[in-house]
Amino acid sequence: MAIGSECVLIGDDIPDRAMSDESRSGRNKPGILLRPRTSEAVSEALRICARHGRTVVPQGGMTGLAGGACPRAQDVALSLDAFSGVENIDPVSMTMTVRAGTILQDAQKAAEDCGLMLPIDLGARGSCQIGGVVATNAGGIRVLRYGMTRENLLGLEVVLADGTIISDLGGMIKNNTGYDIAKLFAGSEGTLGVITRAVIRLRPLPMARQTALCALNGFDDVMQLLHHARQDLPGLSAFELMWGDYFDLLQDLEGVLMKPAPAFAVIIELETMDRETGDADFEAFLARMFEENILADALVAQSSRESARFWAVREGDKIYEAMPHLINLDISISLNQMERFVTECKQAITARFRNVRALFYGHAGDGNLHIALDIPDSGDSQLIHDVETCIYDKVREMRGSISAEHGIGTLKRDYLSYSRSPSEIALMRQIKQALDPSGLMNPGKVL
Amino acid sequence: MAIGSECVLIGDDIPDRAMSDESRSGRNKPGILLRPRTSEAVSEALRICARHGRTVVPQGGMTGLAGGACPRAQDVALSLDAFSGVENIDPVSMTMTVRAGTILQDAQKAAEDCGLMLPIDLGARGSCQIGGVVATNAGGIRVLRYGMTRENLLGLEVVLADGTIISDLGGMIKNNTGYDIAKLFAGSEGTLGVITRAVIRLRPLPMARQTALCALNGFDDVMQLLHHARQDLPGLSAFELMWGDYFDLLQDLEGVLMKPAPAFAVIIELETMDRETGDADFEAFLARMFEENILADALVAQSSRESARFWAVREGDKIYEAMPHLINLDISISLNQMERFVTECKQAITARFRNVRALFYGHAGDGNLHIALDIPDSGDSQLIHDVETCIYDKVREMRGSISAEHGIGTLKRDYLSYSRSPSEIALMRQIKQALDPSGLMNPGKVL
Repeated sequence: MAIGSECVLIGDDIPDRAMSDESRSGRNKPGILLRPRTSEAVSEALRICARHGRTVVPQGGMTGLAGGACPRAQDVALSLDAFSGVENIDPVSMTMTVRAGTILQDAQKAAEDCGLMLPIDLGARGSCQIGGVVATNAGGIRVLRYGMTRENLLGLEVVLADGTIISDLGGMIKNNTGYDIAKLFAGSEGTLGVITRAVIRLRPLPMARQTALCALNGFDDVMQLLHHARQDLPGLSAFELMWGDYFDLLQDLEGVLMKPAPAFAVIIELETMDRETGDADFEAFLARMFEENILADALVAQSSRESARFWAVREGDKIYEAMPHLINLDISISLNQMERFVTECKQAITARFRNVRALFYGHAGDGNLHIALDIPDSGDSQLIHDVETCIYDKVREMRGSISAEHGIGTLKRDYLSYSRSPSEIALMRQIKQALDPSGLMNPGKVL
Repeated sequence: MAIGSECVLIGDDIPDRAMSDESRSGRNKPGILLRPRTSEAVSEALRICARHGRTVVPQGGMTGLAGGACPRAQDVALSLDAFSGVENIDPVSMTMTVRAGTILQDAQKAAEDCGLMLPIDLGARGSCQIGGVVATNAGGIRVLRYGMTRENLLGLEVVLADGTIISDLGGMIKNNTGYDIAKLFAGSEGTLGVITRAVIRLRPLPMARQTALCALNGFDDVMQLLHHARQDLPGLSAFELMWGDYFDLLQDLEGVLMKPAPAFAVIIELETMDRETGDADFEAFLARMFEENILADALVAQSSRESARFWAVREGDKIYEAMPHLINLDISISLNQMERFVTECKQAITARFRNVRALFYGHAGDGNLHIALDIPDSGDSQLIHDVETCIYDKVREMRGSISAEHGIGTLKRDYLSYSRSPSEIALMRQIKQALDPSGLMNPGKVL
């Protein structure tokens, strides 16, 4: 086999990690796992699969949360992990060409070694891979300043279901020569082809980060703070909101920061090119917010260790200790409707589901909320479905998105019509059909 | 006819402006001009055209430079100019919902009235329309800070060739629910459907602009200046480069700014939230650049009138007075190769074409150059073709883009393969075929 027999795994040689992503859904062992080492080998693999009518599930770091990389038993899993490495950094044009199997953190490190920053960052940085980051249009903690992965993408190399290699690695920032194929593949979750290389835009590496944990008494104050932060802080890179009950639960697990917990806690972070000026500007901004009675309290991190403590509460890694049956949702809602959305969701859940608890937090600056659901009867899949539907009903009613950054995969597929019209879905199917007429690429995902 | 007989023009009632865009190419009177006043009327019009197998050319402000909106005699021209107006501005989420026929400047003004900024800006602002701005993925003078139109687009309503209305106007910043249809239509130049509405992301309105005209002795200094400006000026919104011969010709026409002309002139502009601090930071930056011997000279605009004088030279509206047969090209090239590209182009043109003059300038911060060609024998279309091909050959050799922001239209169609591989073009055709199987939408454009 042209892709190299050492790159073909079957049976017990297939590691468990190929069975499921972080959602722990599915958990089927695929019939074959391929680990090609070049784009040409990916092409050859897809050609062979196409000839035999075999369906293909592309896999990266398996950190997805929507089941997008989970195979069925009859699928061929195609992992890019053996095709890794940063191929080129152009410090003048500020671009990076990187292979799909590269761990995000390794790519970040390579940029930093050149005095630049790869602007995409997320909790899974240590294990997620660039191919998956692009395929799921990953968001993360710096979207407010730099946009989603798609906005930072200058080109891709992809392999179509029939083995055709499409290469668009010129890396031009401005290139109006026909359809933007790279941005179509971003967020397509492996359903249109396999991403093998990406050109990503780099940014100047900030010299300092300023981080504050802010306490606010009402949602209007949160919106006022956001307004002023966007206006006055050009380096604003994060505006993370936690409702008081989420914040309080997590500070009890991670280490107390503010007692009693405020009604709303916000982490503001900015990136600046000079520590001293940045600190002074930030202090002056916070002082103005106190004067205007927007802020009730604020802690400014005096070290990166202290800011890490704020982020630990926000990221909630220890939440499983308090909510062992945690289910995490990820939605977008207009900022105008956000408070009403949360209030109505809480009311609906209290009224309909005994013992189910819902905590709200997220990247509020972008309208993105996460919802931590504690559903004690976790074996009851009908109950889980009902709770999720209860929340997604509200999202639909308020014309939000049922997936802000996690994607659709299999887990949200039944809800796609909550955020997309029948004609939009029909159009997506037309595009899918055009690029993958035999339906071999990641079947059953998204559509 | 359901679209209203007053919206259907034929024969002499069709204004000359429907014949061609700013490129003055084509110049055919279309058989019919439709001016629908609602999305439903656009849908009805396309359904009727589809039933009769009539080809449709969408038109906006007719300010394009690639012939993308020029009809043939047998085409139905469909102008969106009667469907205009800003429908909604959400100051909290910072989004605008706007109809396709809205003049860009009117949309900018509506944002400013709410204390916000529509970040897309270009010379044709007073006559170009939002639909065309999106369809051509317009660039302009603030791309360095805010990206192209596509990056500022949160959703679209479009009508497909069969009359299907696809509406994605939720305006979420983060929305990972399947393929990004809006971003596929951006830059598709009317070949996939008709854009009827857009949701555009707004930004905080800057309180002040600082502008300087900088003189530099060498291209390495230009690259150094760009590096430091990107690093030190968070509000950097423009970095416009002019080779000395272009600058000198234009200052002679517009009013002298610096004599003798420097080897390179650069306009740096930044947007700040505070006039005083912004001025001080900018002066300090320029002082550092002098100290490091990067700058040879600089004029800081003391008023918006003075900065307008700098921009007048850069935009070169009077260039026709010196170059009556002007042909303007628009390419992208890696910053690493830019100096060599210009040198080799000038050599090649001097060696091959007597009396042809080429001047270089553009949005260098994004790798985008414009090339002003003076071709005295302007009736000689073979000569024009040969000169263009001479330059595009260099672009291809250096893996640049033959259209940075103007699009492909008809005028660059023969050169599409210079920047796109056969497999990329084949994939574009597959997408086109999927969305417009009868080939009725803007035939002969792009592909």
